[in-house]
Amino acid sequence: MRIVITGGFGFLGRQVAGRLLQTRTFRGAPIDRLVLADRFVPDGSPMASDPLVEIVQGDLVERLDELFAQPVDLVIHLASAVSAECETDFDLGMGANLDTTRALLDAARAQSAAGGPVARVVFSSSVAVYGSDPALPLPPVVSESTLPTPRSSYGVQKFVCEQLVADYTRRGFLDGRVARLMTVSVRPGKPNAAASGFLSGIVREPLAGLPAVCPVDPALRVALASPRRTVEGILRVAELDRGTGPGFLEGRLPVNLPALTVSVAEMLQTLRRVAGDAVADLVTVEPDPAVEAIVGSWPAVFDNARAAALGLEADPDFESVVRDYIADHPDAVAAAAPLASGQPSAAR
Amino acid sequence: MRIVITGGFGFLGRQVAGRLLQTRTFRGAPIDRLVLADRFVPDGSPMASDPLVEIVQGDLVERLDELFAQPVDLVIHLASAVSAECETDFDLGMGANLDTTRALLDAARAQSAAGGPVARVVFSSSVAVYGSDPALPLPPVVSESTLPTPRSSYGVQKFVCEQLVADYTRRGFLDGRVARLMTVSVRPGKPNAAASGFLSGIVREPLAGLPAVCPVDPALRVALASPRRTVEGILRVAELDRGTGPGFLEGRLPVNLPALTVSVAEMLQTLRRVAGDAVADLVTVEPDPAVEAIVGSWPAVFDNARAAALGLEADPDFESVVRDYIADHPDAVAAAAPLASGQPSAAR
Repeated sequence: MRIVITGGFGFLGRQVAGRLLQTRTFRGAPIDRLVLADRFVPDGSPMASDPLVEIVQGDLVERLDELFAQPVDLVIHLASAVSAECETDFDLGMGANLDTTRALLDAARAQSAAGGPVARVVFSSSVAVYGSDPALPLPPVVSESTLPTPRSSYGVQKFVCEQLVADYTRRGFLDGRVARLMTVSVRPGKPNAAASGFLSGIVREPLAGLPAVCPVDPALRVALASPRRTVEGILRVAELDRGTGPGFLEGRLPVNLPALTVSVAEMLQTLRRVAGDAVADLVTVEPDPAVEAIVGSWPAVFDNARAAALGLEADPDFESVVRDYIADHPDAVAAAAPLASGQPSAAR
Repeated sequence: MRIVITGGFGFLGRQVAGRLLQTRTFRGAPIDRLVLADRFVPDGSPMASDPLVEIVQGDLVERLDELFAQPVDLVIHLASAVSAECETDFDLGMGANLDTTRALLDAARAQSAAGGPVARVVFSSSVAVYGSDPALPLPPVVSESTLPTPRSSYGVQKFVCEQLVADYTRRGFLDGRVARLMTVSVRPGKPNAAASGFLSGIVREPLAGLPAVCPVDPALRVALASPRRTVEGILRVAELDRGTGPGFLEGRLPVNLPALTVSVAEMLQTLRRVAGDAVADLVTVEPDPAVEAIVGSWPAVFDNARAAALGLEADPDFESVVRDYIADHPDAVAAAAPLASGQPSAAR
């Protein structure tokens, strides 16, 4: 079992890889090789020294020959240009998202055409396929049956790749699966410029003893998934058998990973309850109409039935999301933060 | 006003061009140049001698520089590989439909980026974006709000291009419009191998005094549009102003051209009524499960409301479709066919 993770040193790639290196099996078969492909490889990654791990650094398209020099059984394709980049630099997005994905699909196709294995390919799509337009509002509850009308180049590129994955799969070139990722919160690390960044920042920064700005009316409701649930969803979509049973791939390829709907006010109240007033008071509400327009256009309520049929559940509540973050990133929590009692939820 | 028609010598291209050469204006402005781009140009086309017409022959991608050497105000992009080809030769379809369309969009984008006009681009999509799957049946009535789930590479390529046209338009690179063409009946000319071919053949061949086979149960209902209505729809989508009014481009780019729903039995009864028993008796019903499966998976009933808001109507009944065909192709009707009385409907 040889597995390739593209974007293997990204935020999600590292976590997916870490999970596979814990189990060291996939669907009961031992993992012989876990290839982490990425443009950037950090120095001193502990994964680099794992005997199962092989690192392929560089432009993905240029490295496809190397990746497919040995048979690939599973590709988890996480490498992607992000939303803001694609809006700023159209060609970069088309190249990094559309052309690169197509080249990867063609490499898998060439492998099966040459008599090699029909690779499983997990494509990480995004909730960004659902754009909202004043003239064409989304329904109050979004499901996989909702017509996506992306309103960003990133969303278009993801939706286009979904179509290609579906067709390559229908034709038997590969065994594709599409997981649409929700907004991930709480993301560790540094603030970024994404419009959704504050949905992590308003928890992460105060826990680290730093001020944070909430740029939307706290009444706004949003759909979130924790990193744990996101990684769990990606791996579940990878593991499942194709079949016609309830749920998985009965002609409807994409899976919206399950989303927790919360208001920003509930997020802030949760932070206060878990970490205390001193921490919660580090958040200032300063609505920014530009951010409100973007974030407010995203669907906030999902019908998680399809994900549930695959055995996936949303985070039960935002408190568990915050407690998981604290448990997973103890170093990112300031010693001064007077954490309220309560146990982190068990790792799932 | 310089207009380019790709596939300009194809069945629809010739008719769209012919209509523009009649009016010699587009939206009130005189047409200075009508460029007919096609891989194949027939000898002795009467259009070739029209002083407005310029012919660009060859591979479209290779000829884009030539097409855009002068400013292009409108492109009607009809060039396409057809459904059966795309299913047989995947790379041909991806090249002819996806790569070529993208190159065309990029040429229009380069034109506007260089300070030239923002070209209108009419993309001819297809009802083939609506695939039906036993596990994911289409609703009984299909509209632009229905989630397309193409079940052919051709349908996927068309749907992917729709997404790109939408994004290039949203970004202001060009002014794109998408017309989804219905199955055209009655097509003139020779029988072809398309699964839908019989929907023209069961009228065209008997009228020419030739036998024809109907490969489906006549109870099957189908959605059709005459060539006249199809050409009218393409031109209407080209002409309309972008705006937020009822109908056109209020965030929902594709327009399903209006469809007439008829049963195959009604088609055959109409032929008998219009052309008599001797002609109608040339049709033999010999159901072919393979054809029935394909044609039966196509949506048969459309909500034409959006097209109606644009001023487009379906053919009123199949009799008018047959009478239009006879009026437009008198040479294709055998002298022996004892045509029943009745006037061809007025050209619209």
